[in-house]
Amino acid sequence: MITVDEARAKLFELAAPTPVEEVALIEAAGRVLARDVAARRDQPPFAASSMDGYAVKTAEVQLHAMFKVIGEAAAGRRFDGHVQAGQAVRIFTGAPMPEGADFVVIQEDINRSGNLITIVNEPGSRDNVRPLGGDFRAGLTVPAPRLLRPNDLALLAAMNIDRVPVHRKPVVALISTGDELVMPGDTPGPDQIIASNTFGLKALFEEVGAEVRMLPIARDNHAALKMAFDLAAGADLVITIGGASVGDHDLVGEVAEALGMERAFYKVLMRPGKPLMAGRLNGAAMIGLPGNPVSAMVCGHVFVVPMIRAILGLGALAPGLKRAELAVDLPANGPREHYMRAEVNEQGWIGVASDQDSSFLTILAGANALLRRPRNDPARAAGEVVEYLPI
Amino acid sequence: MITVDEARAKLFELAAPTPVEEVALIEAAGRVLARDVAARRDQPPFAASSMDGYAVKTAEVQLHAMFKVIGEAAAGRRFDGHVQAGQAVRIFTGAPMPEGADFVVIQEDINRSGNLITIVNEPGSRDNVRPLGGDFRAGLTVPAPRLLRPNDLALLAAMNIDRVPVHRKPVVALISTGDELVMPGDTPGPDQIIASNTFGLKALFEEVGAEVRMLPIARDNHAALKMAFDLAAGADLVITIGGASVGDHDLVGEVAEALGMERAFYKVLMRPGKPLMAGRLNGAAMIGLPGNPVSAMVCGHVFVVPMIRAILGLGALAPGLKRAELAVDLPANGPREHYMRAEVNEQGWIGVASDQDSSFLTILAGANALLRRPRNDPARAAGEVVEYLPI
Repeated sequence: MITVDEARAKLFELAAPTPVEEVALIEAAGRVLARDVAARRDQPPFAASSMDGYAVKTAEVQLHAMFKVIGEAAAGRRFDGHVQAGQAVRIFTGAPMPEGADFVVIQEDINRSGNLITIVNEPGSRDNVRPLGGDFRAGLTVPAPRLLRPNDLALLAAMNIDRVPVHRKPVVALISTGDELVMPGDTPGPDQIIASNTFGLKALFEEVGAEVRMLPIARDNHAALKMAFDLAAGADLVITIGGASVGDHDLVGEVAEALGMERAFYKVLMRPGKPLMAGRLNGAAMIGLPGNPVSAMVCGHVFVVPMIRAILGLGALAPGLKRAELAVDLPANGPREHYMRAEVNEQGWIGVASDQDSSFLTILAGANALLRRPRNDPARAAGEVVEYLPI
Repeated sequence: MITVDEARAKLFELAAPTPVEEVALIEAAGRVLARDVAARRDQPPFAASSMDGYAVKTAEVQLHAMFKVIGEAAAGRRFDGHVQAGQAVRIFTGAPMPEGADFVVIQEDINRSGNLITIVNEPGSRDNVRPLGGDFRAGLTVPAPRLLRPNDLALLAAMNIDRVPVHRKPVVALISTGDELVMPGDTPGPDQIIASNTFGLKALFEEVGAEVRMLPIARDNHAALKMAFDLAAGADLVITIGGASVGDHDLVGEVAEALGMERAFYKVLMRPGKPLMAGRLNGAAMIGLPGNPVSAMVCGHVFVVPMIRAILGLGALAPGLKRAELAVDLPANGPREHYMRAEVNEQGWIGVASDQDSSFLTILAGANALLRRPRNDPARAAGEVVEYLPI
């Protein structure tokens, strides 16, 4: 058996970034920028007023100074003339500064009478002018890789970027295996249960940017599994759930190897999720997740999400852990890294669920964290700081 | 002017939850559960083995005990007979417990020779049996409202729920206004800039569950704005960006009021984002966001996201703030609540961007937090704990 870190390193070796495609900026939220993009223009493209007021010459700005208003500048409509001594232009936020003016007296500091204005409050030294290129200059790059968030889209739009190069969404094929499974809405036989893992995993993987194909449930026999692998053709990542130990057989492993799978590892020193398998199958990466619902979801968070991020070009990074203070005492951990279903409260304390059974979805749905116990971690007392993965 | 909290309270008054619709579970990630749903079955529906091993009678479990193996039980395939004294059934994880057996000796503790097994390690007292209904009983409810996360979908599937009642996605119509704006990819005139707010806001609102219609840019005149409001018909929430102060006119407000808008408020004691407006227009809620890009995005985070959550049935809640220690000294704040572009690092320290200009998108895209300064907050020293909104 190998450790969690070793297993993740082997998964990253299987994770080839997907090719680059161009998408419209309006559809780019949540995608991963694949190449640096450069601003096509300066922003603002001209010196602009940051306030509503009057544009004048700095040298003439003083309390009680008077000016004649000779025109108006608004956003999108520049004043065409040139501001001379003793002159002012009515100006609004975002408007280009008129030629000859380099200071905006805000309207609250002005008294206006017809076309004459007087500065009636101490105007201060702030010029209320945004310089040309103050936000960015043409050529400024947004560096790749970068997961594009809403604020990034606003910035890219301002740079006049309407299409962006992103990594194609990795296609993940999900194969549930098991004679005991039926789909929700079906009527299960007396020995059967409802397939649940695929629903949780599909949502999880789509959240991080994958396109997920949920394949029909594969029965526990060679022919059914072979057909499932055939249906998964073309996927970047093929994920089976369950079937690692059927009777005394590693059925999924047997069928995958018969189809040419080179196994990278089988079994990991972790709890839950020990019977994790991975390899390379016909150019795609393949992961065999354990069949227990909680084990499958925990492995999804701990292994598959980082792997999808790697395939998206975001690098080979372990999931980001956070720290919280223990609300309870914990006994020493054994030789397997343990991901305990836990809840972090608003005060930043973390408590663990009383039942850590690897099949109980009620516990998992009530959790917002997986508390990570390192291998052979000694007993921990309430108040000690531990690490957790937000879920 | 009213405070941020007062403005948000008025927005919540405008936020009517959308009607309930049913969607397939497989499409329910990120949707908000609108009615409690109850499990249609017990899980597990039978007592089941939690390990691979041999099912026997508890009373017979002791070191060196021998049993005759009379059959096999696997997930989905129950053993049909009855386990008698001295008998064992080979059993695998998830299989129904055979009648007459109530203990599973794990295979690591067994020596097998033909059909005879011997317990060769101290088996302990853990029975390795998951009781019927151990995860949940039929009738257990998942209470509404609840934002459905991946783990919830797994639980609902296990409950044999294939369709869920959710609030319809609120339709948000986004109207950019301004003679100075062109779309990304267009060639701007010398006085023009690129419309950027709508791209960031669309992504932000879709992230929290809205369906966003981006309408054509409306020019700064009554006819263009009236046409834009016409195009927005049917939306649950109509959002304009900019145009609150065009020349000396509140153009958006004038046109909206001519169309029957009842104004709820105009101008908020905040920075950036003072010229925020809201009201009710032909049965829809309407919000007028300021035109400065950063102001618009900040108002999106501080006001519109909580409002969309309220429309989705999640209640009238201010956005959740977190706490971090200041990395720098901050001067006293003025009479407006200030949302400073800031960055929280991995150690939990928060620093503020040096330039807080409300039009600079580079600063916003580099931030991961909005540091909230209350009105008239005194000067703060590095090391003090402050509140921030993650973005």
